[in-house]
Amino acid sequence: MLKIALAQINLLVGGIATNQQKIIETAEHARDQLGANLIVFPELTVTGYPPEDLLLRPDFIKQANQAVLDIAQAVQDIDLVIGFPELYEQALYNSAAVLRDGKILCCYRKTALPNFGVFDEQRYFQSADDVCLFTLKGQAIALTICEDIWQPGLVAKNKQAGADIILTLNASPFHAGKIHQREEIVCQQAKEAEIPLLYVNLIGGQDELVFDGASFVANAQGEVIFRAEEFAEQVSVVEFEQNKPLKNICSPLYNEISSEYKALVLGVKDYAYKNGFKGAILGLSGGIDSALVLAVAVDALGAEHVEAVLMPSKYTQDMSNEDAVLEAEALGIKYHTIAIEPAVTAFSGMLAEVLAGTKRDATEENIQARCRGILLMAMSNKQGKLLLTTGNKSEMSVGYATLYGDMAGGFAPIKDVPKLLVYKLAEYRNTLSEVIPRRVITRPPSAELAPDQVDEDSLPPYSVLDPILEMYVEQDKSAAEIEQAGFQRVDVVRAILLVDRNEYKRRQAPPGVKITPRAFGRDRRYPIATGYKGVIDR
Amino acid sequence: MLKIALAQINLLVGGIATNQQKIIETAEHARDQLGANLIVFPELTVTGYPPEDLLLRPDFIKQANQAVLDIAQAVQDIDLVIGFPELYEQALYNSAAVLRDGKILCCYRKTALPNFGVFDEQRYFQSADDVCLFTLKGQAIALTICEDIWQPGLVAKNKQAGADIILTLNASPFHAGKIHQREEIVCQQAKEAEIPLLYVNLIGGQDELVFDGASFVANAQGEVIFRAEEFAEQVSVVEFEQNKPLKNICSPLYNEISSEYKALVLGVKDYAYKNGFKGAILGLSGGIDSALVLAVAVDALGAEHVEAVLMPSKYTQDMSNEDAVLEAEALGIKYHTIAIEPAVTAFSGMLAEVLAGTKRDATEENIQARCRGILLMAMSNKQGKLLLTTGNKSEMSVGYATLYGDMAGGFAPIKDVPKLLVYKLAEYRNTLSEVIPRRVITRPPSAELAPDQVDEDSLPPYSVLDPILEMYVEQDKSAAEIEQAGFQRVDVVRAILLVDRNEYKRRQAPPGVKITPRAFGRDRRYPIATGYKGVIDR
Repeated sequence: MLKIALAQINLLVGGIATNQQKIIETAEHARDQLGANLIVFPELTVTGYPPEDLLLRPDFIKQANQAVLDIAQAVQDIDLVIGFPELYEQALYNSAAVLRDGKILCCYRKTALPNFGVFDEQRYFQSADDVCLFTLKGQAIALTICEDIWQPGLVAKNKQAGADIILTLNASPFHAGKIHQREEIVCQQAKEAEIPLLYVNLIGGQDELVFDGASFVANAQGEVIFRAEEFAEQVSVVEFEQNKPLKNICSPLYNEISSEYKALVLGVKDYAYKNGFKGAILGLSGGIDSALVLAVAVDALGAEHVEAVLMPSKYTQDMSNEDAVLEAEALGIKYHTIAIEPAVTAFSGMLAEVLAGTKRDATEENIQARCRGILLMAMSNKQGKLLLTTGNKSEMSVGYATLYGDMAGGFAPIKDVPKLLVYKLAEYRNTLSEVIPRRVITRPPSAELAPDQVDEDSLPPYSVLDPILEMYVEQDKSAAEIEQAGFQRVDVVRAILLVDRNEYKRRQAPPGVKITPRAFGRDRRYPIATGYKGVIDR
Repeated sequence: MLKIALAQINLLVGGIATNQQKIIETAEHARDQLGANLIVFPELTVTGYPPEDLLLRPDFIKQANQAVLDIAQAVQDIDLVIGFPELYEQALYNSAAVLRDGKILCCYRKTALPNFGVFDEQRYFQSADDVCLFTLKGQAIALTICEDIWQPGLVAKNKQAGADIILTLNASPFHAGKIHQREEIVCQQAKEAEIPLLYVNLIGGQDELVFDGASFVANAQGEVIFRAEEFAEQVSVVEFEQNKPLKNICSPLYNEISSEYKALVLGVKDYAYKNGFKGAILGLSGGIDSALVLAVAVDALGAEHVEAVLMPSKYTQDMSNEDAVLEAEALGIKYHTIAIEPAVTAFSGMLAEVLAGTKRDATEENIQARCRGILLMAMSNKQGKLLLTTGNKSEMSVGYATLYGDMAGGFAPIKDVPKLLVYKLAEYRNTLSEVIPRRVITRPPSAELAPDQVDEDSLPPYSVLDPILEMYVEQDKSAAEIEQAGFQRVDVVRAILLVDRNEYKRRQAPPGVKITPRAFGRDRRYPIATGYKGVIDR
């Protein structure tokens, strides 16, 4: 009986010593507690994923390669498959090493290097074209890495080379629905080549990315016979009779909403912990966005580590303050109230002369938002707490946010969550426990920066705006195509003009968790200075 | 006699219609005024460079391909070589088309796709491996694009295929000294293959990049026989007797300092113009950084379009205000003075309760910087003027700057200029006309955010810091290597810890002009959450 452990663990990008220790302990646990003969780790185990330009540092590469030798020495009586940036004949490869008896038995070098979306692997790595087979308990085991198995033919090639079982090391980031794609493609590959496939994914948050785990094993019939949890560390063993994997526990595939919520929570938790923050702080307006971010923050870090500030102005309605207090109390967090009027008045006076004779416009609204930014940053600076921004993807898309105001902060948990999804996530969170007052969900959204202001004064309704944005930003549809999908020209033009015009704001936004197929940030690289006008069809 | 025009022109990224018009007018000018038989444009002429993720939009690609056909139709009696993203057999190529008699005569598809530094070409394009030859006046002319000619063998391959002359379309961004590299490699290729090479480079600023032009022609002996100006548009003709280019005017290679200064000026000018700003505004502290940025801004946009604000606090020395006024007056710009005390006092009072019992630290310094940020942004918002930040590369490296404070702004002209170079550029600017008071250059630098503060309280002297930063940030040297180069461990550790710790600030910084081999931004992609510690050698 061959027992293979899947090490779905949370690693620290760049933290080679930390990761080395964790790899060793995990392997020993799998050997001693689970009786595993072999343990398989995620892609680039030793460095975490993605290490980005750390890969250009010779000292970093040297440390990573040394760590592999050290791990081999440290763990005996179990085979390890670990990922690392391998320096081989003066070129760098994204490799997987098989460690046995204190030595590197063999290395597989990744063939398919993704260079799209958030991925830049051709910036760092050479591609190889070899098969790597090793034998354990009579079974010929082949290695592949992540993008490899999305390519037609690579699984079949390994089977033809004599493989009985295929392992794949992954760092596949979450977006909504991706797990279905992943299992579909892998199961199809397994079925077509009639070979079992063992898929180990990374778990954890890393800047803009969350890796969701959900590692699994497909048998030669293309059926999932084991699935690890989403968004949690898990080390499990799957038993093989010859090359036939035996049925094991399959954790459920969560539905879309709960997976998205978990992604946000893990993203916030790991950004805060991996950057050494003592907790988080945020401005609570009584609106739906900050209500959701507060719930996410508390679920990520615990109520005792989250602090909120209410910062009313003369435009803040009473119900906003009341609801903000209800939210803070429902979650049991500490909160403060600081009215912004004294600072707004001070700036008004200071600017009176230079702005004399000008008309009131967004300038005055921005001053209010920026006064709030200063207050929150002061508390963040003084206490070493991470300031969370509360802007959503719809706002980021159209620039309905103030730079250095409500955009000020270290992390933007819902920056990739469109407004309509904000509502769904709020409803979902309330099904776990009622923490967001009903009125917050039902009242019309407002920035409360001017008298009786509501978002729809400046923007199309979100039920119209969000689908337009999805088509334009995520699917690269033209204005004409969006109109053909059933939207009014006036709304399409308004939305696209705003998206085009606000790249400069997005460029200065803090990172946030990617949960859609295309997020802002590394995932969407647009020029700021540009003559491109998405509204002009030719 | 064959007359080839080099069209060193400034293009607008994404502005296909604008570029199309300019290409047509330039070709007509070369034909009618200069008698050219052929005109060669820079890489990706039609879209500008780099169009980034606009290349993923089907509508954009369609427009670009249509523009090439339209240009071919519009201009007769001269051959055009223009660059464009070519959709060919369902794949995208970085191509150069030869236009003759209203049609596309042939297309060359780029072989070497750079995917390092600021370049992401493998994200968008397929690579090809063909030679493209066309004949004009009895000469066989071959095409290459930018990175191609940096590869060994590609020039020789074209020669062997029968080429008499090689054209190369480029978008080669500036950094100090790069022009020497460029000419050296091209001349060497020309000499080795014994073939003349005509090198056309783009000119203009685009977000973080400045393209410096300095197009040139090398003869088959590897000598430069023509060179266009740096940092200026220029359309020139070089005559060929058979395949022998005739000597023409060689614009001088500027020295390093003046080229760097021109790069900053062009970068600011094009960022402001291409983004439609009505002018620029900046905070003037009396320090060297803002003095230099002011001079650059005035040289870029004209004194009448630049406005400065002095924002003294109780820590501002009299001489700072005096010098700031002298700078504004020397350059003839409008300036205002707004003391920040009222806002600082307001925030002090508002935060008294939540910060009660805490010790004074950077928090209070940041509040001052952020009050200045609010004032400047209010004036920028109200007037539609671009706010320029004044931080230099040394500060960006170690995080000696306040997010949302002095880092607030749309463009950061000197963010890639190390402090020691700031001094050199200030001295250089004063040789053109005395605009920066001597005392500003000679007094010790200070942020003036606390009593009697100087930079050296928090940082090693810049004469020590700057070379350490260059080795760590630009050359990927390890701490041990930097020590071996002659620096004290204590300084190396201090600098590296600060660089490692401040990636989050840099991620929210505005773009600025790249002038070194490695700038921050697209050029250096580091994780924020990381366990990498550059100070630990293993």
